[in-house]
Amino acid sequence: MSKARFEQLREQLDQVNLEILEVLNRRAELVSEIGLLKNGKTTERFDPIREKEMLDKVVAANEGPFQNDTIRHLFKQIFQASLNLQEEEKKSLLV
Amino acid sequence: MSKARFEQLREQLDQVNLEILEVLNRRAELVSEIGLLKNGKTTERFDPIREKEMLDKVVAANEGPFQNDTIRHLFKQIFQASLNLQEEEKKSLLV
Repeated sequence: MSKARFEQLREQLDQVNLEILEVLNRRAELVSEIGLLKNGKTTERFDPIREKEMLDKVVAANEGPFQNDTIRHLFKQIFQASLNLQEEEKKSLLV
Repeated sequence: MSKARFEQLREQLDQVNLEILEVLNRRAELVSEIGLLKNGKTTERFDPIREKEMLDKVVAANEGPFQNDTIRHLFKQIFQASLNLQEEEKKSLLV
């Protein structure tokens, strides 16, 4: 393979990484907004029913190459990170 | 808050989830392509230097609300999932 092609693919990968970063942070902002509207504060409690509903929708739309179990795992990590962020925001408001 | 606004935000969240799904799978396809070009097979070995380089670029671009440590954690999960996928693809070729 040509080195140029390889470099091109690596650049594409870096670009996709930045897209993932952007959409993860956009999701975090949205979750904060929902939490604020819901409770008048930034903490949204864990809602297993809503979480399952979101996961089911994502998995239903999954066409791979990642398998459904992998997608579930990654999204659970994202959900957890969002909850942790809300906890941090709550603490910072209490200081 | 109005119920309509809440529903609207939930729909936005579902939409963002699907965007994350799309870009995660796009990343997985790109990693497979790089692996194929690199080795003539679908397995790309773990490359800690390249992984660190990718993480540094992502963290440098991070403007929050997720903190850098959270972004690092989520991306490590994504990298690991990509490696696992490559292993699965390799096994399926060997059967």
